[in-house]
Amino acid sequence: MNEVSFKTEERHEFTVVNFELSQPIEPIDLATCNPPKVKESKGVILSGRGPIWLFCFLAHYYHPTTWVATYDPRLGGAVVVESHCRSYSVGQVVQVEAGS
Amino acid sequence: MNEVSFKTEERHEFTVVNFELSQPIEPIDLATCNPPKVKESKGVILSGRGPIWLFCFLAHYYHPTTWVATYDPRLGGAVVVESHCRSYSVGQVVQVEAGS
Repeated sequence: MNEVSFKTEERHEFTVVNFELSQPIEPIDLATCNPPKVKESKGVILSGRGPIWLFCFLAHYYHPTTWVATYDPRLGGAVVVESHCRSYSVGQVVQVEAGS
Repeated sequence: MNEVSFKTEERHEFTVVNFELSQPIEPIDLATCNPPKVKESKGVILSGRGPIWLFCFLAHYYHPTTWVATYDPRLGGAVVVESHCRSYSVGQVVQVEAGS
């Protein structure tokens, strides 16, 4: 069983949830994956290097939050993939500068 | 604006939703992306080559279905990332043989 380690950073309008894998993750590891709790009244940005199914699992895990975005290093920002508020729209790219 | 083209295949317990990009997709294309309707009483397997945020968008889009999995070519199967039934668990790998 491989552990996913998480680190969160609080920003004004969202929480950045960073994950790291010490070694390649197996699908069954999702069953015991325990992502950190976050404030549901803000958005979540998922950031890390891992398989698509880990990102999708996390995107679903955080869907009670106001919005969820995934960080894309090629874009230098995070793409909103689901939103329950008007200020952040699906397809929007959110910048993740320090202190934003 | 770039189109995502979809193709669905009905299987006994799930629908395979294949997508193809004629050229690289931009985040804003998510706003007009119109994935096919599927039977919500079955699962959905997402399959295609595209950015993580497209997969996450689709995983959320199909979350009213019984379960959602993403196909991983390295595993030769699809990993369940969310489930609302007992027969399919998060982390399970579903085989996608023809006629299954």
